[in-house]
Amino acid sequence: MEKCSKTKMRRGLYVGRFQPFHKGHLKVVELLLRKVNELVIVIGSAQYSHQLDNVFTAGERITMIKEALDEAKLDSCRCYIVPLIDTMVHSIWVSHVVSYVPRFDVVFTNESLTRRLFKEAGFDVKAIPKYERNVYSSTEVRRRLVKAENWEELVPKAVARYIKSIDGVERLRDLLKSDK
Amino acid sequence: MEKCSKTKMRRGLYVGRFQPFHKGHLKVVELLLRKVNELVIVIGSAQYSHQLDNVFTAGERITMIKEALDEAKLDSCRCYIVPLIDTMVHSIWVSHVVSYVPRFDVVFTNESLTRRLFKEAGFDVKAIPKYERNVYSSTEVRRRLVKAENWEELVPKAVARYIKSIDGVERLRDLLKSDK
Amino acid sequence: MEKCSKTKMRRGLYVGRFQPFHKGHLKVVELLLRKVNELVIVIGSAQYSHQLDNVFTAGERITMIKEALDEAKLDSCRCYIVPLIDTMVHSIWVSHVVSYVPRFDVVFTNESLTRRLFKEAGFDVKAIPKYERNVYSSTEVRRRLVKAENWEELVPKAVARYIKSIDGVERLRDLLKSDK
Amino acid sequence: MEKCSKTKMRRGLYVGRFQPFHKGHLKVVELLLRKVNELVIVIGSAQYSHQLDNVFTAGERITMIKEALDEAKLDSCRCYIVPLIDTMVHSIWVSHVVSYVPRFDVVFTNESLTRRLFKEAGFDVKAIPKYERNVYSSTEVRRRLVKAENWEELVPKAVARYIKSIDGVERLRDLLKSDK
Amino acid sequence: MEKCSKTKMRRGLYVGRFQPFHKGHLKVVELLLRKVNELVIVIGSAQYSHQLDNVFTAGERITMIKEALDEAKLDSCRCYIVPLIDTMVHSIWVSHVVSYVPRFDVVFTNESLTRRLFKEAGFDVKAIPKYERNVYSSTEVRRRLVKAENWEELVPKAVARYIKSIDGVERLRDLLKSDK
Amino acid sequence: MEKCSKTKMRRGLYVGRFQPFHKGHLKVVELLLRKVNELVIVIGSAQYSHQLDNVFTAGERITMIKEALDEAKLDSCRCYIVPLIDTMVHSIWVSHVVSYVPRFDVVFTNESLTRRLFKEAGFDVKAIPKYERNVYSSTEVRRRLVKAENWEELVPKAVARYIKSIDGVERLRDLLKSDK
Repeated sequence: MEKCSKTKMRRGLYVGRFQPFHKGHLKVVELLLRKVNELVIVIGSAQYSHQLDNVFTAGERITMIKEALDEAKLDSCRCYIVPLIDTMVHSIWVSHVVSYVPRFDVVFTNESLTRRLFKEAGFDVKAIPKYERNVYSSTEVRRRLVKAENWEELVPKAVARYIKSIDGVERLRDLLKSDK
Repeated sequence: MEKCSKTKMRRGLYVGRFQPFHKGHLKVVELLLRKVNELVIVIGSAQYSHQLDNVFTAGERITMIKEALDEAKLDSCRCYIVPLIDTMVHSIWVSHVVSYVPRFDVVFTNESLTRRLFKEAGFDVKAIPKYERNVYSSTEVRRRLVKAENWEELVPKAVARYIKSIDGVERLRDLLKSDK
Repeated sequence: MEKCSKTKMRRGLYVGRFQPFHKGHLKVVELLLRKVNELVIVIGSAQYSHQLDNVFTAGERITMIKEALDEAKLDSCRCYIVPLIDTMVHSIWVSHVVSYVPRFDVVFTNESLTRRLFKEAGFDVKAIPKYERNVYSSTEVRRRLVKAENWEELVPKAVARYIKSIDGVERLRDLLKSDK
Repeated sequence: MEKCSKTKMRRGLYVGRFQPFHKGHLKVVELLLRKVNELVIVIGSAQYSHQLDNVFTAGERITMIKEALDEAKLDSCRCYIVPLIDTMVHSIWVSHVVSYVPRFDVVFTNESLTRRLFKEAGFDVKAIPKYERNVYSSTEVRRRLVKAENWEELVPKAVARYIKSIDGVERLRDLLKSDK
Repeated sequence: MEKCSKTKMRRGLYVGRFQPFHKGHLKVVELLLRKVNELVIVIGSAQYSHQLDNVFTAGERITMIKEALDEAKLDSCRCYIVPLIDTMVHSIWVSHVVSYVPRFDVVFTNESLTRRLFKEAGFDVKAIPKYERNVYSSTEVRRRLVKAENWEELVPKAVARYIKSIDGVERLRDLLKSDK
Repeated sequence: MEKCSKTKMRRGLYVGRFQPFHKGHLKVVELLLRKVNELVIVIGSAQYSHQLDNVFTAGERITMIKEALDEAKLDSCRCYIVPLIDTMVHSIWVSHVVSYVPRFDVVFTNESLTRRLFKEAGFDVKAIPKYERNVYSSTEVRRRLVKAENWEELVPKAVARYIKSIDGVERLRDLLKSDK
């Protein structure tokens, strides 16, 4: 299992909510695995589920990501998938992340607050390589799920199959009724 | 990557604090990986570190476990390593676990409260197969760390190397001074 | 005290915020007491008060409900009135409810998220029998309280008297000023 | 239902953990119901259960108390049974209690901290009338439960029956094993 | 150090978020120091920072206030500057404040909820003396910071200098990008 | 106000629980004020009071410290007295401290855990200059308070006077009864 060799490893950090994990996320993981030996994928807002913007539990999101990586033949043994609850308090957030994940050398993000907080704490922050961000977004996936439009094309096949297996489409529609 | 095949999978759950991860833990993982297709390893009391009984952060424990599994050539791609904070409130603990990990079919534990709570919630609970529990214990590792006795023989080589690399021996001794 | 006989009892659960308890709520309690031997009335969001949408404390809401039931000659000894704080975390909410109330056999709700969560947890969920929901609503009571319109006709006499006795009208108007 | 008349009512407060509710507690409720029109029974440390000192959930304790009062033909319609979580922070505890219960005029307690906190907040605090406190104590009930001695004689029949019905004896013994 | 004499002291309370501390706040402190011997300045929502409405940490706000008072030659030795986290739960808020600050005799506020809560708790509440409130507001300072308009004229020189020294302008602009 | 001049300032941090503030603490503050221009005095475990080991509220401790500094003619305008709640989670504690206090250059502590945590975070940590630590300790003050021995000689006169004025001796004795 040569790819798991630890020599001269550089570990990267990638944070998202993955509600749900879509093809854009998968593409990013693929690109980042070319740049670093190991990648820490943090599932943010891990405590939330059954909300319009946070449909799936942390456990469900771990499953989605693992199955999507395996389906894409990406080397999941080079990834750490770590659920992380919010602190609400931004000033301690970097310490909070650091204490829950293996030591990392670089943070990949295009999100402005994440970049700001890690920069103020002295970390190396890099932009995520470009991919078709206007096509793939979790918000759009959720919108299509609700409207019964073609959401499957935006997520890896394994994720679509998994969401159906846990009755995720009905869950989101029920949540929508609740919110009205 | 045949071993990762999901057909007829059965997933097991194994909860510990792993302060630190020792040879006994490693043996249990090895035994359980023969019984289930996938194993969820939950790192309990994830929020604590820098205490006499909880020396290492969740991130440090994830690293230890991953490196020990890789060193032992165990199939880490069949394991989910998930840090989990305590709820303090036992009546919601099972729900809490369930929401942070992939769906599992069986709980492996010899711990009486864990067994009680999962049984009251209707789960299938099995005893952990016997191994030399009187030899390997985290309490004993920490005792030897403090006394500068031979703690290395109780943990996988990768764990000993890692603990030294993060100055873990000195940390525990400093904690001991604080407690007096 | 024949009505309190426990033989062949079936206990129901009814959750609301009761900000404040109005004639519609009272009618529901009356209907449900015909269907079950005992009714658990959970006062949700118990920790909040002195907010525009959560005007009254849990203690004030307990008092309202008790006085309204007594005034209506309903059998309050067959009701459990239990204040319950929010968990924020939906995935543990059912366990949370279960641990704070006597065991119940059926959940009565027309609220979509409540129904979803209890159904996912395997409970028997029934719709609340129809009553004039377009007439009675807590939102409408609060709107009229603010506007000095006839809010008294929407709540039981005992509740109107109680709200006045604790200076509740002035409280809500002060809260409104704060929000601007 | 004359006893429920609210004229010239005086409400008392009585706080306990009731782990479990024993004959001494029942006697106190009986004595206090002679002194006040209504009694608020607060179930403290409501969030805890499945611990050696906190065996039963709040919901289980509500059930015990209600069934014991009914069995003793005490007027449970003059009692409010309110579960209350701990604040940990003593300086806000009185405010916390006040916000979860109906307004009360007098606090009954023999507990020194409770008396101190209510006195500092300006409340009227009275000692609980004497009863055989050296005979009845929750600690003694739990000790006998563990040792399989005659614990039933210390609790009302309804409580003994209830504890057995929820497998409470086994639960406590399992907890004891966990603690070792 | 005559002004610090404690004889016949009357202490006042003044609560704000001070995001940031502007000339209007400074004027209020100056006016209040003429009315009371000592002033407790509570920095509310102390836990928040790096948000659009809560840009600065509690520590940064303490620094701003202290430097502004010194620059204005106000007697900072007669002021207590105390950061205070939110309780979220209004019913315990007054107790919470009371436990974190020296005993005070009067509350100065024009904020309706603050006045309501202290009045319900029996405190003496007075309006803050008039000053040019339509000119000075933290919201306006933040708006100008974002738009690169003249925000410096709204805050004491010491505050402007401090905000620049901690790169506060860039922080707020980064937060704005994040929010979009 | 020459002593308050900020030129070439160096700020120090000093953390304690101050239950209560005694002559040893005062001596330390005096020594440290000779070494730094400004001193941040953090009152730890700020949320606790009315416990055997945490008798006084944060507000009471602020008052004690301020009055003791003034009585000793120390320059309290060069001190920041900041109450800080515990995080329980050691890995984020340094970030937590940093966000609640003005930027500091050096940490003074003889406490092993505090030194460890700040060192791991890269701070300059110095030992507190020697003073008669075997004579002055808060534990000894509390012991004497309980036993009605001469506790007054261990604390500044202003602190003794203040503790008596808030009935602190009786409070501690009541707490002791509660604990038995």
